[in-house]
Amino acid sequence: MSASPYVQLEQEFKRLHAFRGALALLRWDAAVMMPRGSADVRGDQLAALETEHHALLTAPRITRLLDRAQANTQGLEDWQVANLREMRRQRDHAIATPATLVSRLTKAAARAESQWLTARTEGKFASFAPYLEEVVHLVRDKASLLGQALNLAPYDALVDEFSPGLTTADIDAMFKALSRRLPSLIREAIVAQEGRARLPLTGKFPPHKQRALTVEVMKAVGFQFDRGRLDESEHPSTEGSPGDIRITTRFDPADVFSGLLGALHETGHAMYDLGLPQDWRDQPVGRDRGMALEESQSLLLEMYICRSRPFVRYLQPLLARHFGTTGPEWEVENVYEHLTRVQRGLIRVDADELTYPLHIMLRYELEKQLLTGELAVRDLPEAWNSGMEQRLGIRPANDVEGCLQDIHWAIGSFGYFPSYALGAVMAAQLYESMRAELPALDEQLARGEFGGLFGWLRTNVHGLGAKVPVQDLIKGATGKPLSAAPFLRYAEAKYLENTASSAAA
Amino acid sequence: MSASPYVQLEQEFKRLHAFRGALALLRWDAAVMMPRGSADVRGDQLAALETEHHALLTAPRITRLLDRAQANTQGLEDWQVANLREMRRQRDHAIATPATLVSRLTKAAARAESQWLTARTEGKFASFAPYLEEVVHLVRDKASLLGQALNLAPYDALVDEFSPGLTTADIDAMFKALSRRLPSLIREAIVAQEGRARLPLTGKFPPHKQRALTVEVMKAVGFQFDRGRLDESEHPSTEGSPGDIRITTRFDPADVFSGLLGALHETGHAMYDLGLPQDWRDQPVGRDRGMALEESQSLLLEMYICRSRPFVRYLQPLLARHFGTTGPEWEVENVYEHLTRVQRGLIRVDADELTYPLHIMLRYELEKQLLTGELAVRDLPEAWNSGMEQRLGIRPANDVEGCLQDIHWAIGSFGYFPSYALGAVMAAQLYESMRAELPALDEQLARGEFGGLFGWLRTNVHGLGAKVPVQDLIKGATGKPLSAAPFLRYAEAKYLENTASSAAA
Repeated sequence: MSASPYVQLEQEFKRLHAFRGALALLRWDAAVMMPRGSADVRGDQLAALETEHHALLTAPRITRLLDRAQANTQGLEDWQVANLREMRRQRDHAIATPATLVSRLTKAAARAESQWLTARTEGKFASFAPYLEEVVHLVRDKASLLGQALNLAPYDALVDEFSPGLTTADIDAMFKALSRRLPSLIREAIVAQEGRARLPLTGKFPPHKQRALTVEVMKAVGFQFDRGRLDESEHPSTEGSPGDIRITTRFDPADVFSGLLGALHETGHAMYDLGLPQDWRDQPVGRDRGMALEESQSLLLEMYICRSRPFVRYLQPLLARHFGTTGPEWEVENVYEHLTRVQRGLIRVDADELTYPLHIMLRYELEKQLLTGELAVRDLPEAWNSGMEQRLGIRPANDVEGCLQDIHWAIGSFGYFPSYALGAVMAAQLYESMRAELPALDEQLARGEFGGLFGWLRTNVHGLGAKVPVQDLIKGATGKPLSAAPFLRYAEAKYLENTASSAAA
Repeated sequence: MSASPYVQLEQEFKRLHAFRGALALLRWDAAVMMPRGSADVRGDQLAALETEHHALLTAPRITRLLDRAQANTQGLEDWQVANLREMRRQRDHAIATPATLVSRLTKAAARAESQWLTARTEGKFASFAPYLEEVVHLVRDKASLLGQALNLAPYDALVDEFSPGLTTADIDAMFKALSRRLPSLIREAIVAQEGRARLPLTGKFPPHKQRALTVEVMKAVGFQFDRGRLDESEHPSTEGSPGDIRITTRFDPADVFSGLLGALHETGHAMYDLGLPQDWRDQPVGRDRGMALEESQSLLLEMYICRSRPFVRYLQPLLARHFGTTGPEWEVENVYEHLTRVQRGLIRVDADELTYPLHIMLRYELEKQLLTGELAVRDLPEAWNSGMEQRLGIRPANDVEGCLQDIHWAIGSFGYFPSYALGAVMAAQLYESMRAELPALDEQLARGEFGGLFGWLRTNVHGLGAKVPVQDLIKGATGKPLSAAPFLRYAEAKYLENTASSAAA
């Protein structure tokens, strides 16, 4: 007797999972280990494996098996039914985009990425514009095909690739709520912090010592170094597969926190990946529930847990032990002041929790307009600069600190940016519920104990994998539908503490 | 008009090349970078890619294209015709072994490898025997199928996988010539060296300094660090693809030479891989010409070039600079004496040039007997031990320093061992011709100049890829058919210098 269609599908998707793991390792190696001159060799390897992965996923055999398995789901358990749904989702996304379009987009993105690097060096948007234009055209085609196949508006279809279950309507509702309060909140927070002292944290912090501290903290957090690594690369990242997670960060000898917090942000991703349901590790239902939730986990650890007084209490003696830091500037309150500074800046990746969503809203608005054609690529710099002025009151002096700062559009990642802001909103909502259920959390964190935190997250988030839609997951974990209110409550409490506005909230 | 069958084949094999490169990177990472606990994840990835590579190579489409292309080779150049021949060779080897047998062998080998490790720890061959037996049975089946398909004797078919173009007849002729002279030569060399002084080379050599020295020497040799890396692992190895070569070695803080010479042995492989014809890099005809020739290149650099007086002259000031080595024990003659010491030992990988072939002959004889069934697996330890006694006059006290020392048989590598000894013989023949054509070689080496050496090798060996059979390549490079005579001449001149026997030779 041959295996059932469902069991055959599990075998097929186990193989696809292994392919994706191999691809992730090749990408990690390219960023961390690969010799400079070997990019051409690696490019061929990535293309070969990606093409084959696409071919295997869209093979008629998979469609036939899916049809047969979905025709009769009697006898399948919850997880298996959800697994089938996620298999279908992956296949539908893959088959909606013809291999030729995928290949044209991959090549156009590779050219645009290279031109983007050049344009950044030379500070010239104009030389990059035609390449971005080509990418925009191809992404528009892809969005239209994906939308038809998935019965979604074109832009929603792109969002669905990264954050399944979230739509423009969700994003708009969230951003509207944030827009109403954030600009004034930022003003008030800056006024409040100007009234407080902040001693500079200067010194020399050798990278090898920063690494030792970071490893110690990551171990306390629960990162399994027998199932993952920490290395250094140009940009912090998390790659690999659950079961072999590769984190990178970047140590700045003049800044004791940027490398550590970069690593802890990535550790938030890693803990999610390591906490995914073991039994479904190599199946679609065992994957993360999209990029917004992924980002909620990294932000939760970095912003909510690590940029907090209890964590600084835990960290302070470690800093003293690793770097010999003493004096009033290393007191908890002064360090906390540094970790929670609000500042209107031009660069997204350097932004604090309050200004960050405004950076995202601008990108969200502009990328939608680029895709509809409402905004021409050549007009992007001006639209960007006036958008920044309008939202944050500052104007880039050039495109490098303006619309050339992010790689996303060059490589065809449209519909990705909203995940960052939605992640922050989800993190706040999860954090609020978690605090209510874990009254001893602050004391645990101050002792460097993260078991309670991750126990809660495993039960309510990590261990669910992709079993339920993200909105249901949030509602299950917090008892309420996704909303921006917890984020605003958290932001007011944290950034306006001891002020009239906070008291009134 | 669609592309010609030949051009379509080139595209297919380019893709297969990329798959093999990805597999090589996954193996390198497993040996050098991977967290301990991630072996299961990596195992799935390797299996998925290997299975797919086998499926792609044995697909009916490849056979059809090969038939069509080979039916009409008019208009194809030499290299293209040779490429077709190598494509067919790869496909014939792959298709002769059914996927089920490949998969059974892979799994049996994984089990046997794990039991081999355990048996080594516990010193018990008996617990390993049934697992080895299973592997032997499967390899026997494979040899029989391969032999039928390739019209070769079963054992020859296995040899052909590693060293195409070489047969038992070649090996027997070579080993007969070596057997006649080596035992007495070893006796005479040991007597001769006992008459010479050898001051011990003691000291502490921190691994990071050894690494710096090794990198400096590898750069001088010509290794391109923008196309490769040097790392550390349990066993020295060369992995990766031409264009991204990953070398490993292992530094012993008490021994200044083992890590350096291990790396230089691997650099010999790497220089071959880096010197393969650029235009054919991703095609079968652009690959190395088998393991015997590969080994000739690593031995040529390690044994012939680096264990020589001119190289020691170049190395001596580097040792002084990196480690502050001074005193009579660091004089050229004393260092050379250490690098050319002959000693009857039990362990193959520690053996010198003269005793090494005897280790190989024993394994060659035993693995043939295991495959025919003439020797039962349970009788292997006794056969090994008495073979060692007979050939080298020493008897292992246990199986760990006896028949459990090599991993090859556990992982199903039968027919591989002869490559090591054939490599030594080829190296000698190439070296003899090269010296005749490069009269200034010694002076160049003493100055740390390796351009002449590798220029000759590129023209006569590396640049030919797999264009001609290995016997033709050796004949083309040296003007004579492959023979053991140059090896014996070299060995007598090097190890019996200033003795009567050498003078008589």
